[in-house]
Amino acid sequence: MIPNSQKQILLSSRPEGVPANRNFKFIDTSIPKPNENEVLIRTLYLSVDPYMRGRMQNVKSYVEPFQLNEVITGGVIGEVVESKSDEFHQGDIVTGMAGWQEYSVVHKNTVRKVNPEQGPVTTSLGILGLTGLTAYFGLIEIGAPKEGETVVVSGAAGAVGSVVGQIAKLKGCRVVGICGTDEKVQYLVNDLGFDTAINYKTTENINHDLEKACPNGVDIYFDNVGGPISDAVLNFINHNARIPICGAISSYNRTDNDLGPRVQTKLIKSSALMKGFVVNDYANQFKEGALHLGQWLQQGKLTYEETIVEGFEMIPDAFIGLFEGKNLGKQLVKVADPQYNK
Amino acid sequence: MIPNSQKQILLSSRPEGVPANRNFKFIDTSIPKPNENEVLIRTLYLSVDPYMRGRMQNVKSYVEPFQLNEVITGGVIGEVVESKSDEFHQGDIVTGMAGWQEYSVVHKNTVRKVNPEQGPVTTSLGILGLTGLTAYFGLIEIGAPKEGETVVVSGAAGAVGSVVGQIAKLKGCRVVGICGTDEKVQYLVNDLGFDTAINYKTTENINHDLEKACPNGVDIYFDNVGGPISDAVLNFINHNARIPICGAISSYNRTDNDLGPRVQTKLIKSSALMKGFVVNDYANQFKEGALHLGQWLQQGKLTYEETIVEGFEMIPDAFIGLFEGKNLGKQLVKVADPQYNK
Repeated sequence: MIPNSQKQILLSSRPEGVPANRNFKFIDTSIPKPNENEVLIRTLYLSVDPYMRGRMQNVKSYVEPFQLNEVITGGVIGEVVESKSDEFHQGDIVTGMAGWQEYSVVHKNTVRKVNPEQGPVTTSLGILGLTGLTAYFGLIEIGAPKEGETVVVSGAAGAVGSVVGQIAKLKGCRVVGICGTDEKVQYLVNDLGFDTAINYKTTENINHDLEKACPNGVDIYFDNVGGPISDAVLNFINHNARIPICGAISSYNRTDNDLGPRVQTKLIKSSALMKGFVVNDYANQFKEGALHLGQWLQQGKLTYEETIVEGFEMIPDAFIGLFEGKNLGKQLVKVADPQYNK
Repeated sequence: MIPNSQKQILLSSRPEGVPANRNFKFIDTSIPKPNENEVLIRTLYLSVDPYMRGRMQNVKSYVEPFQLNEVITGGVIGEVVESKSDEFHQGDIVTGMAGWQEYSVVHKNTVRKVNPEQGPVTTSLGILGLTGLTAYFGLIEIGAPKEGETVVVSGAAGAVGSVVGQIAKLKGCRVVGICGTDEKVQYLVNDLGFDTAINYKTTENINHDLEKACPNGVDIYFDNVGGPISDAVLNFINHNARIPICGAISSYNRTDNDLGPRVQTKLIKSSALMKGFVVNDYANQFKEGALHLGQWLQQGKLTYEETIVEGFEMIPDAFIGLFEGKNLGKQLVKVADPQYNK
C-alpha cells in the first residue's frame, strides 16, 4: 500500500557553525511514480555522515553543494515497492543514494541489491558499503601499511576509523586510536584490538600521550578530524610517513579562518606525504575492496558497531549528534520496516 | 704550494629569526693531511642554500643539525692538491660536501670528478648538481606533469624554481612563476619561457593575480616558499592536484608559531596530494636525472643563471642574502682559482 503523501526534509538554510534543527524543514509532499528503468523504493534506513556538512556550504568541492529548499540526499537502504525495471522486483532490498524522504524514485543503475547472506542489511551502508570502502582504500592505497609500522587513527571510534584500525591490525601494525570518551577508549582496545587509545577530551597533554603511545614514531596517520589533534600528531611523524586525509570534522563547523601551524616544514623534514581523498576516487577498484571486507567480516576478523536511532523525525538530530561524537561506529536512522521482504 | 694555515667559518650561535653575521665566526686553523683513500682539496666555489638554515636549528630533521663552534658544511667545488687515492690526481676538479673553509680533506667516495666538457664547472653545484636534481625529481616524480596542465612555481627565479619551470615547459605545461622583483618577472618570462609570472611583493591581490594567471586552475604547485603565498595557491588547486614541497623559505626564519589556514579540508575537496621531499630520497635515480638534465642543457633546452660573489669572507653575506631574495638562480661564492688545472 503506497500512501498518498510522504514526509521529506529540505535544507532550509545553510548552517553557520554547528548545524541546528532550524537549518532543516519537514514538509509533506507527493510520492512520485517510477518511469521506465526506474524503481520506487521505501526508505528503511538512512545514513548520516560528517561529509554531508560540507555539502551544506555553497562552495566548490568534489560534489555539488545541496541546494536551498531542496531535499537533502545521502546513502539509504530501501525496499522496492514498485519496479519498472526487469532487474528489480517488489521486496528487493537495495542501497544507493536517495533523499531524506520516506519514498524515492531511483534509476536502476544508481542502486544495487543488498545480499542478506553477507550480513545484516545495514552493513551495506557501513562496513560493507562506502564507509568500509573509505577505510579500506584510504589505508591501503594511501597509507600502504607495512608490518611493524605504527598507525594513528583519529575519529577512531567512528564508522570509518573503527574499520581503519582493524585493517591496520590485520596488516600487522601497532594501532593507536584517538577518540573522545573513555567508553570509546575501552571499545577500541577491548573490542577492536587497538594497541592503545587516547581520549583527546580528557588528556592533559596530547603530545605527551602520543609520545608514550608511539615510541617508534608515527608511520601512518589516518586523519578523520583535522584541527589541533592533527597538529599534534604531525609532531611525531617518521621519515616517509603517509597521511591519508579522509575527514576534518573539527573544521567543518568553524566560522573563523581555522588557523593552525603550517605543515610544510614538517612534511619536508620527514619527506612525508599527505593526500586528501574521497571514496569515489577508487570507484574502479570497489569490487576488490568489497571482496576483502566481506571475507574479513565472514571470517570474524572484522567487527563493527552501529548506532541506530529510530524514526524519520530523528534524522536531523542524528546528523547533528555526529559533531558531538554521540555515535559509536556507523550512525544510522531506521525509518521503516520492510513490508514485502520479511 | 699549500700554506701553513687556512680560514674556516664556524657556527658560533644559532640564529633566531633571520641569520646575521654575528652567528658566524671566522678562525684561522691548520690544514689537515690526507690519509689513505683521502684527498686534500682546495675550495674553489661554495654553494649557499636555503635548506642550510634548517641545519642551524637544533631540531630533528633529515640531516643532523650543525654543531655549535664547528665548521659549517655544504656543497663545494674543489681542486685536488694532494691525493692519497689512485682515483684522483692533483688538478682534478671535484664536487661534494665539505666545510666552509679554504682546504678540506675528503674521502674519495664522498666526491666525484667534474667533467668540464659538460659545461662550466659551476654547473656541478647548480643545474647539473643537486639543485637541478631537486627540481627534476620533485617535478617529475611527485608532480608528474602532463601536457596541458598548469604548473605554478614559487621561488621561481631561484636555483631550483628556475629549473622546475623550464622542465615543466618541456613537458608541455602552462607555467606560472611567483617571484619577488620585476626583474625576476622579466627573466622568467623573457629568458626562461614561463607563460607568466607574479611579483608577490608588489601585487595588490595575489588571489586575483593567480586566478587570472591560472584560468584552468592549478594542477601542480611546486612549493619552494610556504607561508601566505602557498596559502593563496591552495585556493586554486584542481582535482587530483600534486604539490611537491621542496622548501619553505618564508618559514625558516620565523620565531613565532607560523600559523596559517589549515590545509586538510582543501586537500579533501580536491583529492590533492602534498609531499615533502629532499633530493636524497631519489639517490638511486640520480644517474637517470643527471642524464636528462645534461642532454637538455647541451641541446640548449635548459638555461640557467648564477649569482656569484667573490671572496671567502663573503660567504655569510651570500647566505644571508638568500632570505632577501638577492640571488637570481644559483647563489655561489667563488673562493679561489684553480692552481693546477687551468
